[in-house]
Amino acid sequence: MRNVVIVGAGLTKFGEQWKKSFREMITEAAVSAILDSKLEGKDIEAIYTGTMATGKFIGQEHIGALISDRLGLNPIPSTRLEAACASGSVALKQGYLSIKSGEHDIVAVGGVEKMTEVGVHHASSALGGAGDQETELFHGATFPALYALLARAHMKKFGTTEKHLAQVAVKNHENGVDNPFAQFRNRITIEHVLNSSNVSSPLKLLDCSPLTDGAAGLILMEKQKALDLGLDAVEIVSMAQASDSLALTGRKSLTELNATKQAGKLAYKKAGITAKDIDIAEVHDCFTIAEILAIEDLDFVKKGSGGNATMSGFTAKNGSLPINTSGGLKAKGHPVGATGVAQAVEISQQLLGKADKRQVKGLEYGLTHNVGGSGATCVVGIYRRA
Amino acid sequence: MRNVVIVGAGLTKFGEQWKKSFREMITEAAVSAILDSKLEGKDIEAIYTGTMATGKFIGQEHIGALISDRLGLNPIPSTRLEAACASGSVALKQGYLSIKSGEHDIVAVGGVEKMTEVGVHHASSALGGAGDQETELFHGATFPALYALLARAHMKKFGTTEKHLAQVAVKNHENGVDNPFAQFRNRITIEHVLNSSNVSSPLKLLDCSPLTDGAAGLILMEKQKALDLGLDAVEIVSMAQASDSLALTGRKSLTELNATKQAGKLAYKKAGITAKDIDIAEVHDCFTIAEILAIEDLDFVKKGSGGNATMSGFTAKNGSLPINTSGGLKAKGHPVGATGVAQAVEISQQLLGKADKRQVKGLEYGLTHNVGGSGATCVVGIYRRA
Repeated sequence: MRNVVIVGAGLTKFGEQWKKSFREMITEAAVSAILDSKLEGKDIEAIYTGTMATGKFIGQEHIGALISDRLGLNPIPSTRLEAACASGSVALKQGYLSIKSGEHDIVAVGGVEKMTEVGVHHASSALGGAGDQETELFHGATFPALYALLARAHMKKFGTTEKHLAQVAVKNHENGVDNPFAQFRNRITIEHVLNSSNVSSPLKLLDCSPLTDGAAGLILMEKQKALDLGLDAVEIVSMAQASDSLALTGRKSLTELNATKQAGKLAYKKAGITAKDIDIAEVHDCFTIAEILAIEDLDFVKKGSGGNATMSGFTAKNGSLPINTSGGLKAKGHPVGATGVAQAVEISQQLLGKADKRQVKGLEYGLTHNVGGSGATCVVGIYRRA
Repeated sequence: MRNVVIVGAGLTKFGEQWKKSFREMITEAAVSAILDSKLEGKDIEAIYTGTMATGKFIGQEHIGALISDRLGLNPIPSTRLEAACASGSVALKQGYLSIKSGEHDIVAVGGVEKMTEVGVHHASSALGGAGDQETELFHGATFPALYALLARAHMKKFGTTEKHLAQVAVKNHENGVDNPFAQFRNRITIEHVLNSSNVSSPLKLLDCSPLTDGAAGLILMEKQKALDLGLDAVEIVSMAQASDSLALTGRKSLTELNATKQAGKLAYKKAGITAKDIDIAEVHDCFTIAEILAIEDLDFVKKGSGGNATMSGFTAKNGSLPINTSGGLKAKGHPVGATGVAQAVEISQQLLGKADKRQVKGLEYGLTHNVGGSGATCVVGIYRRA
């Protein structure tokens, strides 16, 4: 059995990148990851990139070839994957499988999205493609509205409050202060969140992740080869992906994401561990309610107790299980195709002790949790220092 | 080493499908492939689907989850790949690797595109995303224009004529007559092609593949498992993918597609055979010049002699090396994301002796050749009856 490790990681600054094109951002992240790996471009045998809606955002498809071309890496295979906001993790999973299969020994994985240039209205429409156009977006249900429904259901069933939701944003902004790549590096308070403008009740502006431009890159390698070269390496212990109905109307429950539960369960099983073994995680907090659902559905806390756990500091950087030390999607930003890859960048840096001011000590296992749309795709990865 | 076979194949009718949605077409092809395999939906462990420009064609991304949902196969992983007109083959390759890696034993692969509904102008713009928007489409170079440049270069260097090009279309229409799934089932003559309206000189209307709606599906399985079950099976002996510059301006030569040469060379090497061993092939004839380039770059004929070889009947159904017995992209139609998968459907049916009136006898090895854009991606697959 071949195993796979991460030997390099890189990011662009996340945010509104008016002076950087899609091509420039993915190149910057890839070069940064290659330099971090101490390998060279010529060592890379294939590229897998996740990006969601390039047709609508930049009028361009054929993204795989665009990237190998731009990186000067032709003629190696270069492949683009799309799974809405989980595009990055799906690309990571295919890169991982391509090494496990014996097809490649060294692979670059990228994630990228250039979102802000088209304006908010057009971006909302493009992002709506992550849900069901026929039964949701067409009728006016944009993503804040879909997650607002999930929030309302959770509040009704479990007594989760707007303050609970707000505390997710407060914590993630606190973490973002120490991340030089984050879009927002300002502290906020519960009052800031509660007083921010209404987007789709109960979700307010500061409950929502922003539109973001950005890219992330990873270099994956067959484990033994990396160890032989003495590289700093983080093993991808397991990756699991699950699907659920595209539209909320098809779900059995609105107080959980079944794709998260299924992918989490499978990832734990493949890794031979349980949720209790996870020491740090990056979860998909596209809206504050999403982080509460995630920590429950990943079995970090009991179903229904996510709000209270967040208020108690359980998920804070100095808590029992630090969640989103990068600032998460809320503060680091959410360039949709890049997000899953950026989560693995943060976890790999944490496990290698390279997270600077964000560093958490005593880590063994880390986890990434990346969701597409309102939960129709979920990818969970589990990592450990090799 | 695990090997991979095709155990089921299915298609929708290709053409203008005014009464079938994207969702209905991919469902129809998938169900057809599952029924052909004698397996059941519940046996499938993952789905890989190729589709190019759904954001622009149907306003929908998150295609993986859409498909698993529609097929009633949640929560299995369902993943969408994009490589312009090579999207289908790239999906097939990832399905193949997922079985080789040991991750899965049985996988469904799909290809689909719903193109005609948006109208020709919008479709041309969406398809332009397969080239370089910044240096090509933005300046007015649509795909007929790009391939016209390749045709002119070939004519100038090798004396290829408009009649040579026309004969590709004549042959593929002849083959399409016997394919009940083909968009066009009418014979045409060289005069018809030469007298058809000019699109981008020297390419005329009948040198161009059409806009097409359609879907294709395959069921892949770990070889030993399929043999144990006594299933009719075609082995995927090798698959190789290569990249080249996105824009024509970056190419070293306009009289060859280097991605085809690289992918072909690697596919032959992995299979341990040469071009001489191939008995039948489906190649990417998006324009007539593309088939001439393909048969040269795949080493079926000497560089520069593709036009004469076509005129001589070498590539006809009863020739030495039948090319595009399905009718090819020209007559069968070219629903871009479906094309690569549909090529493998034809080759697998030919190798199993299930190609009805199109059947060629005495086949051992078959090949598929699928190109993205003007040649920035190429995937070559080699197949043999298991």
